[in-house]
Amino acid sequence: MKVSALFTSAGINIALCVTLLSLYSILRKQPGNVKVYFGRRLAQECIGRNDPFCFDRLIPSASWIVKAWATPEDEILSVAGLDAVVFLRIVVFSIRIFSIASLFCIFLVLPLNYYGKDMVHMNIHAESLDVFTIINVKEGSKWLWAHCLALYVITLSACVLLYSEYKSIARMRLAHITKDKPSLSHFTILVRSIPRSSEESYCDCVKRFFTDYHASSYLSHQMVSRSGKVQKLMTDAEKMYKKLAMYKSPSLNQICEPCLSRCSFCGGPTNSFKKLSDDPERVEEKPNLDHLNSDNLGHHLNSDNREKECAAAFVFFKTRYAALVASQVLQSSNPMLWVTDLAPEPNDVYWSNLWIPYKQLWIRKIATLLAATVFMLFFLVPVTFVQGLSQLDKLQKLFPILKGLLKNKYMSSLVTGYLPSVVLMLFLYTVPPTMMILSAVEGTISRSCRKKSACCKVLYFTIWNVFFVSVLSGSAIDTINAISSPKDIPTQLATAVPGRATFFITYVLTSGWASLSSEVIQLFALLCNLFYRFVLWREGPVDFTLSFPYHTEVPKLLYFGLLGFTCSILAPLILPFLLLYFFLGYIVYRNQFLNVYVTKYESGGQIWPVVHNTTIFSLVLSQVIALGVFGLKHSPVASGFTIPLVILTLLFNEYCRQRFYPIFKSTSAQDLIQMDRRDEMCGRMEEIYDQLQSAYYRVSLMSSDVSKAEGSSNSGAMDSSCKAPDVKPGLANPTFETVPLSGMRQAITWLSMLTASQQKNPPK
Amino acid sequence: MKVSALFTSAGINIALCVTLLSLYSILRKQPGNVKVYFGRRLAQECIGRNDPFCFDRLIPSASWIVKAWATPEDEILSVAGLDAVVFLRIVVFSIRIFSIASLFCIFLVLPLNYYGKDMVHMNIHAESLDVFTIINVKEGSKWLWAHCLALYVITLSACVLLYSEYKSIARMRLAHITKDKPSLSHFTILVRSIPRSSEESYCDCVKRFFTDYHASSYLSHQMVSRSGKVQKLMTDAEKMYKKLAMYKSPSLNQICEPCLSRCSFCGGPTNSFKKLSDDPERVEEKPNLDHLNSDNLGHHLNSDNREKECAAAFVFFKTRYAALVASQVLQSSNPMLWVTDLAPEPNDVYWSNLWIPYKQLWIRKIATLLAATVFMLFFLVPVTFVQGLSQLDKLQKLFPILKGLLKNKYMSSLVTGYLPSVVLMLFLYTVPPTMMILSAVEGTISRSCRKKSACCKVLYFTIWNVFFVSVLSGSAIDTINAISSPKDIPTQLATAVPGRATFFITYVLTSGWASLSSEVIQLFALLCNLFYRFVLWREGPVDFTLSFPYHTEVPKLLYFGLLGFTCSILAPLILPFLLLYFFLGYIVYRNQFLNVYVTKYESGGQIWPVVHNTTIFSLVLSQVIALGVFGLKHSPVASGFTIPLVILTLLFNEYCRQRFYPIFKSTSAQDLIQMDRRDEMCGRMEEIYDQLQSAYYRVSLMSSDVSKAEGSSNSGAMDSSCKAPDVKPGLANPTFETVPLSGMRQAITWLSMLTASQQKNPPK
Repeated sequence: MKVSALFTSAGINIALCVTLLSLYSILRKQPGNVKVYFGRRLAQECIGRNDPFCFDRLIPSASWIVKAWATPEDEILSVAGLDAVVFLRIVVFSIRIFSIASLFCIFLVLPLNYYGKDMVHMNIHAESLDVFTIINVKEGSKWLWAHCLALYVITLSACVLLYSEYKSIARMRLAHITKDKPSLSHFTILVRSIPRSSEESYCDCVKRFFTDYHASSYLSHQMVSRSGKVQKLMTDAEKMYKKLAMYKSPSLNQICEPCLSRCSFCGGPTNSFKKLSDDPERVEEKPNLDHLNSDNLGHHLNSDNREKECAAAFVFFKTRYAALVASQVLQSSNPMLWVTDLAPEPNDVYWSNLWIPYKQLWIRKIATLLAATVFMLFFLVPVTFVQGLSQLDKLQKLFPILKGLLKNKYMSSLVTGYLPSVVLMLFLYTVPPTMMILSAVEGTISRSCRKKSACCKVLYFTIWNVFFVSVLSGSAIDTINAISSPKDIPTQLATAVPGRATFFITYVLTSGWASLSSEVIQLFALLCNLFYRFVLWREGPVDFTLSFPYHTEVPKLLYFGLLGFTCSILAPLILPFLLLYFFLGYIVYRNQFLNVYVTKYESGGQIWPVVHNTTIFSLVLSQVIALGVFGLKHSPVASGFTIPLVILTLLFNEYCRQRFYPIFKSTSAQDLIQMDRRDEMCGRMEEIYDQLQSAYYRVSLMSSDVSKAEGSSNSGAMDSSCKAPDVKPGLANPTFETVPLSGMRQAITWLSMLTASQQKNPPK
Repeated sequence: MKVSALFTSAGINIALCVTLLSLYSILRKQPGNVKVYFGRRLAQECIGRNDPFCFDRLIPSASWIVKAWATPEDEILSVAGLDAVVFLRIVVFSIRIFSIASLFCIFLVLPLNYYGKDMVHMNIHAESLDVFTIINVKEGSKWLWAHCLALYVITLSACVLLYSEYKSIARMRLAHITKDKPSLSHFTILVRSIPRSSEESYCDCVKRFFTDYHASSYLSHQMVSRSGKVQKLMTDAEKMYKKLAMYKSPSLNQICEPCLSRCSFCGGPTNSFKKLSDDPERVEEKPNLDHLNSDNLGHHLNSDNREKECAAAFVFFKTRYAALVASQVLQSSNPMLWVTDLAPEPNDVYWSNLWIPYKQLWIRKIATLLAATVFMLFFLVPVTFVQGLSQLDKLQKLFPILKGLLKNKYMSSLVTGYLPSVVLMLFLYTVPPTMMILSAVEGTISRSCRKKSACCKVLYFTIWNVFFVSVLSGSAIDTINAISSPKDIPTQLATAVPGRATFFITYVLTSGWASLSSEVIQLFALLCNLFYRFVLWREGPVDFTLSFPYHTEVPKLLYFGLLGFTCSILAPLILPFLLLYFFLGYIVYRNQFLNVYVTKYESGGQIWPVVHNTTIFSLVLSQVIALGVFGLKHSPVASGFTIPLVILTLLFNEYCRQRFYPIFKSTSAQDLIQMDRRDEMCGRMEEIYDQLQSAYYRVSLMSSDVSKAEGSSNSGAMDSSCKAPDVKPGLANPTFETVPLSGMRQAITWLSMLTASQQKNPPK
């Protein structure tokens, strides 16, 4: 690739981005799109947009950028929660480290690469991009120490930044836990694997056990039940009835109506856009007793429910410390009985997994691990097969009717050129939902855990299939062969990565930037909205909000970070493009958190250890690749200095694991006891106990069905409050929605690279 | 090797064993050897042997065998503790599984191997041993299903036996924990990394923290201090003075004297053999205040000791449950401060490691892990180098004086033949003490943990250096190369192991049997004793007792188990010899536990998970080797049936880990609370509190010095009570002592095998 081609590509992509962002700034001003672009504010605040139609609405503006940029972190924390702040910290960390890397690599390493060989340089526009990579440095060059120095600077800065981020996020997590508003989950544990007894029910058994062994701190408990088929149908009918009743009496409970009804300019019936009440009293009028039966709320239903009672219960304690202790101590001398864990927040409970017998869990974990590994390793096999099928002659054989159509030369090139990419893209779209299903099957008890688990799986998938397989050979089996002898890995990578650097630069340009534009413009939601309003002539689904798809976005950011670290000294030209990506990402994601996504549950920054470990992995990988390159370039000094760097990086990681990781696994006794004392002094405890009685009871009506919908519909991140029965969850899949443009581009670029690599390394 | 040679070798070894055992049965009857063969009974019981000299004492008898065989397990449990019972269970398990394996393999697999090829068999005596191995089965034989069936039977029986053993040992462990005699360690935790403060001493800081956060259950605490040089000298002087005072007034405190003084027949001064009193009052008269200062016992020494106070303390609680909770919960929001663990038993504390700053521990662990790995991988490098030096011509150059001597043909063959073995043997002797030092440096806080850790290290060393390196190639680097590509491992092992089967049979014959004979005869201790009595004309060291060297014996047993599993279907001829070894071991070890070794501290069966995992590893390894062999013999059916067996075995292991392993890591709340209630009802709590005040205080006088002696003298398992200052701990090293004969044989056989393999696979 030539420099001029790169600049052309960059120019096109910048123009595309600017166009899309301008388009966004116009679209967001249209009242009809308020549900697409202000979902969170619609759901959580009463936004009023009483401006009549004016010309101003059709002029692009940068006000949203200023707003997103200027919003302080505290506001994002209060609006979108700790997870969002931690996510934005990944972006900030990336901006910081790659600014430092740019400074060093552009001004020190890039000139050395460019003048690395004694050659006559052409006009800069006609120069190949390889001239700017380490490939151009001649063997045995004495200037390789500069690359080694840059590696040291990058690693040390990364470690310093990582440490300070870990420290500050740990502090934020502590503040989040000890915040003024008491968290009910701190008082609650989930007990599973209650022993079966012929003499007493599970409920009595729990009561007896905890009054016996935790008498001083035990408060009460709630059994978890699995609803039968008939009960499920009845619940659905009841829900439907309620919904219909709502539609019939539009004035009921419409808190936000006055300000919303004015902002329709398409003439649609304004009172069809409504917010269902969150008022607990309404919901409690008809308690969904088939999911829970409280110890306090009535044994009169026990006789009906005994068969459906699960061997699981929520147990409430009088203090946070007592709950923590009960959750961490081995309860019975048979470790498979009375298994305790701290309960998730009521909103966060993944109800449909609570009934899973504890004895199944270990085998489920192994099975999903195996399934994910197999899926990861053999992902390309069906893709290649289907792509083979999609070749022209085979298509013609299968569908003789196409024969005439495909004779058209333009059509045929379109089909052969684009069909394989489409196939690959469609397969790629299946990855995040598949990983979400696997994480659900695994048996996680909270929705945040499920998302974190899916995030890790997608991350491994990306690093393996999009980095290693593409870099090394193009097929998983060849890649396994290539890295099966550990001592050859540095050399293998060192041979392959610099050659792929050009591809990575275009990847950042096309896939990275475009994914952000499409994220901000929310193409799928926009189209859905238009379809509802102009084809079906009605308002879209009521209160249709999305939660942020951490499981697709975190792996994307981390993958770009990996590219940045591995390419920084090999091909520094990638860094400015990457920096632009992260800057744009900073604006876009802040805007989305403020306006679009609703935070329904939180993990409390649990994702950061994953980010930290992945960054360390990226650092070590880049050091190993550098080691291989220095070896290939016959520079023993540089190689010699790189080895201690690898060891120091690993030691740093181990130190951070010792110093910070326990904080993310458990809360300290000191903090919990202080919180207990504070609440006792305020006299708030009684109030908390009252809330506890209904906390895990009220939510069941909403969340249990949501989680089932999520589980059964294969829709990864759809966390709407299940008040939109007329929207197919599968359609609302945010995977399809957040990366429609980028996915296409990504697939195309990846495929071209794949084909090239397969031509290079034909299968043996 | 021919069959006749095998029988000759077996005959010689059996004769040797019988001779040594007969010799033992005579020697043990001599009153002069009572300290060698009845160390435990001398130390813990008052044995009286007032029989005068009679002819009966010179006739070998089998009474000790009958006694060792007939002693019930309960008696061994009460005498030698749970660890001894668990150790014997390894032997019992091996006997059971290899009996089943023998039954199947001798009557089903052996004939198939023998008639595996169409060949004319010679006279059975002249037959090669290879005829009895799987090498003799022709390729594509339809009889390989029998081998596969035998593998299934062995695996299934092993799993059933392992499960029942794990279950019964878990039950025994529970009984051991909940036994009537209260264990003081249950009430105690060890707090490390107490934060430094300029305003208050560590002692005040601990008091403030625990009265603040654990007010209801906190009892008191004791600081750990590191003694300065001057104080150490003073303590030594004090100890010396006490000892001298004892020698001057022989009648003082000699509880056992009346019965012991009669049994000397060598005329030595009987009153020089004494037992120091364990009476706490005597010791407490002059408390060793530089090691501990109790919160209760006096702040008057604080001013002197503040500098030497460590950031560690023993904290006592009112109930077991409270101590467990305090030990398991994260105390502070900085996980590197207020680190709590359950304290070891007072006898078990490894005092010299308590002062280690907690922040050092993770780096110490990594460093020792690295050191152990390097030691393991490159163990053979210096050995080969020194062996190279020891060749004749090089020796002559170094020591010209030897020239004349070495011209003698007999002498020269002796030197060249035996010197390499001696060098190898000397190097092998360094392994267990080295691993003990590494485990001490690691920072373990209890002696039992240190021994367990050393046991694991020696086990890995044995499996790597004595099995893999010897089987595969003879050098560590070649072995790493050989197994660095995972898919080739089965084939590599399948090619190598059946060929080595003959060697393994002789290894069991020579090394195995001889090690047991030398264990029972205690050659080194016997020689020491004779040296003291007939050369120095005095009694040997007072109260010189040994604790059982689990870290050398457990790896030995497990290694023979590994040989049994891997060879059972490949070369079933090994099984009878192995069974004989385990039967003999059963008798010998029971005898030793009853008579020789003193149990000063216990881990409560913590070794069993290691044994379980190693057995699973052996099973999987034998399945993998079988897989390779079936592949080489072109039997896809047998290969196909072996793969699910591997998976099932691993699943079984995972299940056991879930089901039993937590019991070995922690005690359940249920059990502890019940024990607390029982003691409260008996009114025994006050008594326990009183004992607690002095428990970790009294022992310091003895154990702190012992542990130092152990740490500094490189003596792995010497756990004598440090009342024998005139015995060099290095000399008393039981590693040198328990396997002097077997070590020599083992070294020779191993060396011959090594040389053969190096000739086969010359270094490239």
